[in-house]
Parts: sequence; C-alpha cells; structure tokens
Amino acid sequence: MNLQEYSHKRYNILTQEWVLVSPHRSKRPWQGQQEKVVREKRPTHDSNCYLCAGNTRANGEKNPNYKDVFVFNNDFAALQKESPDFSEEDGLLVAQSERGICRVICFSPDHSKSLADMNPDDITKVVKAWKTEYQTLGEHDFINYVQIFENKGSVMGCSNPHPHGQIWSQSTLPNEVAKKDKSQKQYFDKNKRSLLLDYLKQEQAKKERIIFENDTFVVLVPFWAVWPYETMIVPKQHLQHIGLLNETQEYLFAEAISKITSAYDQIFDTSFPYSAGIHQAPTNGKENTHWHFHMSFYPPLLRSATVKKFMVGYEMFGSPQRDITAEQAVQRIKEVMS
Amino acid sequence: MNLQEYSHKRYNILTQEWVLVSPHRSKRPWQGQQEKVVREKRPTHDSNCYLCAGNTRANGEKNPNYKDVFVFNNDFAALQKESPDFSEEDGLLVAQSERGICRVICFSPDHSKSLADMNPDDITKVVKAWKTEYQTLGEHDFINYVQIFENKGSVMGCSNPHPHGQIWSQSTLPNEVAKKDKSQKQYFDKNKRSLLLDYLKQEQAKKERIIFENDTFVVLVPFWAVWPYETMIVPKQHLQHIGLLNETQEYLFAEAISKITSAYDQIFDTSFPYSAGIHQAPTNGKENTHWHFHMSFYPPLLRSATVKKFMVGYEMFGSPQRDITAEQAVQRIKEVMS
Ligand SMILES: O=P(O)(O)O[C@H]1O[C@H](CO)[C@@H](O)[C@H](O)[C@H]1O
Ligand SMILES: O=P(O)(O)O[C@H]1O[C@H](CO)[C@@H](O)[C@H](O)[C@H]1O
Repeated sequence: MNLQEYSHKRYNILTQEWVLVSPHRSKRPWQGQQEKVVREKRPTHDSNCYLCAGNTRANGEKNPNYKDVFVFNNDFAALQKESPDFSEEDGLLVAQSERGICRVICFSPDHSKSLADMNPDDITKVVKAWKTEYQTLGEHDFINYVQIFENKGSVMGCSNPHPHGQIWSQSTLPNEVAKKDKSQKQYFDKNKRSLLLDYLKQEQAKKERIIFENDTFVVLVPFWAVWPYETMIVPKQHLQHIGLLNETQEYLFAEAISKITSAYDQIFDTSFPYSAGIHQAPTNGKENTHWHFHMSFYPPLLRSATVKKFMVGYEMFGSPQRDITAEQAVQRIKEVMS
Repeated sequence: MNLQEYSHKRYNILTQEWVLVSPHRSKRPWQGQQEKVVREKRPTHDSNCYLCAGNTRANGEKNPNYKDVFVFNNDFAALQKESPDFSEEDGLLVAQSERGICRVICFSPDHSKSLADMNPDDITKVVKAWKTEYQTLGEHDFINYVQIFENKGSVMGCSNPHPHGQIWSQSTLPNEVAKKDKSQKQYFDKNKRSLLLDYLKQEQAKKERIIFENDTFVVLVPFWAVWPYETMIVPKQHLQHIGLLNETQEYLFAEAISKITSAYDQIFDTSFPYSAGIHQAPTNGKENTHWHFHMSFYPPLLRSATVKKFMVGYEMFGSPQRDITAEQAVQRIKEVMS
C-alpha cells in the first residue's frame, strides 16, 4: 500500500475514530478566506492588556506585579463552582449539572512573548504551575478532571495576545477524555502495558514520524494526525499525569515544548496559531494506571501564514479530513527545526 | 433544575456525546477576531466564477448553459474512485483504503443567490437533484454512504460565493454517521420505533424548541444543539432517506429549508454562514429501518455578523461548549422568522 498517493483512512487508537487522508488533494487552487498575519512586534508591557502585570482586569481586580507565572480564576468562567447538583432524564431529554473551576495562567509578564520564544528555563516555570494546578484543583472532591490548554492566535479564538493558557476543571470526564480513558483501559486490561508506550516503541523502531527526542520525551506526528502539522509530546516512561514529573523531567518537558513551538514559527515565518492541550489521568481518586499523559498541538495553518485548513461541512458531518500526510508534515517540520 | 441559569451538560441521543452549556457566560467581553461582513450585492453572472453557466473551470472543462441545477464531478476530489483496495494493521498503525466519488452541485445559475433567497419551487429542484444523486451514487457497489452537505460563507471554508453544495460518497461510514447508525439501531432494536420520531413527539408535546412545522417536516433546535443557532429539519413520517420523498414531500422539505435559511439571514442582518448536511441511511443494500433522515444546520455566528463561536482549546480537547441555551436560540429565531 502507498499511503502517500491514494485516498485512505487511518485509525486513531486513542479515540477509536478515523481520519480521511487525501494526499493527492493539496494541488487544488485556493480562492477562499485568507487570515490576517500579525508581524508587528508587541511591546513588553501594554497598559490596555488585562493580563499584564499591575493592570486592572475587566472585573475591576488588579493583577500583582508578577515576575514569571501568574494564575487566577477566570473572570468569565464557563463552569461554575456553585451549580446545584442534578441529573435529569425526561424521556429522551437528558441533562446533568456540571460543576467546575476555570483558571487563567499567564506564562510570562512579557507581553511580547509566546512559548515559542521563551527559553526552556522559563517554560519550566509554566510546567511547574500546571503541575500545581493539576494537583490543587484535583484535590477538590467535586473535581474529577483537569483540562490544561492554550489557544494561541486570534484565528484560534484567542482574544488577547499576552502569552497565556487556561485550565478548566470539572466533575465529569469531557467527551474526548472519556474516549481516551476507555481505549487506554481496554488495552491495559488486556495487555498489562500502556497503549501509548507500545505505540511509541513502534514509532521509535520505524523512525518515520519522530521529530525530536530527549531523555524523557518524544515529539512526533501521530500516525492518525488530523490537523496539517499536528504533533504530540509523549513521555518515554509510563507517567499517568504531570504531577509525577521530577525536576529533571519538568525541564525536559519544557525543552520539548520549546522545540516544537519554535519550529512551528519557522514553517510559515509567522507566529503559528494553535490549540494545545494536555490529556492525562482523571483526578477521581482511582489508580488510573492505564493512563499515559501526552500533550497535543492542533495548528490550523495548511498552505501559508494566511490559508488554514477548514474543518467544516464534510468534516462536521462525516470525518476529519487532511490533505498532506503525517509523513509529509514530519519532513517539513524537520527541515525548519533548529 | 434551571437549565437557563447554571452550567450543565446535555446528552446528544444520536452521537451519545455531551455538550457543555454555560448560559451565564454570554456576558463576557469580546476583543478577539472579527469576521468580515460581505454586504455587497453580487452580479447574477460573474465571468470569473468557475461555477457560473457557460464559464470554464480550473481543469479546462466548460460548464453548460444550465437553467436550474447543475451537478458535476469535483475537479479536486478528496476521494478517488481508483484507489487500490487495502486494509493494513501493522501493530498499532491501522489504515484502510477509502474509495469514493465527490460531486459538486450548483443550486442555481444565478450567482447572486443563496438558498436563503431562492423560493421553495426552486429549492425543490435542488431536493430532486440530491435525491437523484443519493440514488445514483448509491447504486455503485463500492459506495455505501452518500454525504450531502453545503459550506456557506468564506468563514465556513467556502471558496466561491456561487450557491453550491457538495456530495462526498464513499465505501465506509464516516465517524459521525457510524455513531448515529449505532444509536438509532440500538434504540430501534429495543423499542421497534424510530429514535428520532420518538424524540420529535416529545418536542411536539413540549413546544419549547420548535421553530416551524408543515405537513411533513418540523424545524427545531435540538435539545443538545452545539452551535449557537444550530437547527435540525426532521420528517414527521418515518423516512430512512430522501430517496423515499414523494413530490409533495419534496416541496415541503424545500419549504422547510427556505424558512430556516431565510430566518438565519435576519438574525444578524447578514448572509448567515453555515455548514449544513443531511444524515440518512447508508446505501449498503441493507434495510436500515432504524434510520430516520434529518438535515442539520451548523451556523458559527454567536454575537453579531462579525463575532463567531470558536470551537477551539477546550472544545477540541474536552467537549463542545455553548454560551446561549437552545431555548434562547429558539426565541431569537422565532422573533425574526416571517
Ligand atoms: O471542497 P472545498 O469547497 O474546496 O473545501 C471546503 O470544504 C471541504 C469539505 O468540507 C473541506 O475539506 C475544506 O477544508 C473546505 O475548504
Ligand atoms: O475563554 P476565552 O479565551 O475567552 O475563549 C476562547 O476559548 C474558549 C475555550 O476553548 C472557547 O470556548 C471560546 O469560544 C474561545 O473564544
């Protein structure tokens, strides 16, 4: 079989869903929407930014003069701590309360930066803060899952260019996490080994989709990647969640993040937008031995700094579809990686 | 329980997934990306448009002087008819060939129109063409599913404003269809009744989410809607696919489409972008009695003609999330409906 030439589908072992791959399709002309490119250099402090140190936020609170990382409760949280508890099934109308805590994390006081231009030492501080949040939020009885993520770039719905991410923690497992929980459990129960670790070993033997490696982490384009330049950071040791990282591993995780985010910026010579997120063990008090934490990057750009991949019609009603193969993406990322 | 006030989740009986609803969140300020509004009136014929009658397409073929609907093979098809047949499982790397035929359907020769400003009689011609395509494509041995859809507006990845839709037909069931196939089958096997018909009866009794009704169709906002103004057209009779529509029903389907698309244009006084699609019985030669066809509209706009809902970070890694409730959307659509 030739996966670089013919339309085919690939199976995502984590979500148990398929992605349609159309390698021959990247030749089609594009007359559609063009995104704006922002190349202007931002100031290191912006008095209108509600995330900069010392500034006042929309709700009237004043940010401290923070020096590295700053975490606070989201002023417009999607999840409420105080929702009353209910579960209703009225025939085919099924609803349940969902309680939660939403946090915002500023990665740096420097308004002009992004993870891509921070050094691994500074990113390590972000990793440490994520770790603390995962642990502290997880301690609440009513919090059973902590979703850490970042939306970078206005094309990814980000409304403020200040380097920051979010943490939404909640009572139940969101859809994507529930799927991965199930697949990893099925595999672990059957094989007594981590699904992702076995997958990683295959990728290490094949060497076709690996972009970067250090002592603890591998950055690769998963075989079933959906987004044009989607990547995944996977630990080489069986770590269920980031709470288990030791000091060295924290740094090595930061190094992997630094490597891939700065490579992204090179691909189209632009501050590359993406959504990134960490999937890890629920904080439900169970052992969750089957979990293997990983961080994924979903960057939308396809052809240039201004033309993105649209996940629309067919993708919404059918399956996700991609135009370049995972292997072509690996080549491109490796070319630009320093 | 008060579904208009507290964060909660609702269950989609068709996909068996959840949507997170945050009714309190629509108050948050927006400083993020603004979409372009296109209000300029387009000409009825554009010599640069590769879909207008008589014009030459990117691949050199010339369009006929069509008078109503025109269907042709996609010049840059994502699915190929000639892909070799394979199914490979190399450990955790699983891939399969996917063969298919992709078609483009021009709804009208009039470049300035959209479904929203076509009358039910003209939309009936589109319905008839969909019906023919569903039947003809479905007759191929290697085609087991026919996905009819439309991407409207550049924000939905549409690269040409000429009124048109697409049809991607293929060998296997795409993810979303496989989910709905499973749920409808489970329900039908257990209850010997159509899942969607039972749901419809509940909605008809409640009258809270119904927008429009004629003799054969109901337009409603499903209880589990994800997109701010998402709607669904459901037949009141148990029809597995559009191939079963008689002449009257074809017209009544067109009327329902006309009603909802023209209402959309009123909400923010703009040509409302969306992706729409029909989910219906596979063309796999089986009975598929459990299927109940329906057409869904996924419009992205949230606050105005320029501010859309972003399905990013949390939505990609967790679950889809919405800020206004389904019931609030119903109120708004009914207000503007003529
Ligand atoms: O086929 P088109 O109109 O060029 O392309 C559009 O619709 C397709 C099907 O939903 C998507 O895969 C593309 O990303 C989108 O730009
Ligand atoms: O919370 P923010 O940054 O205002 O909002 C952004 O991220 C959220 C979480 O992915 C999304 O629900 C919003 O649509 C998006 O605009």
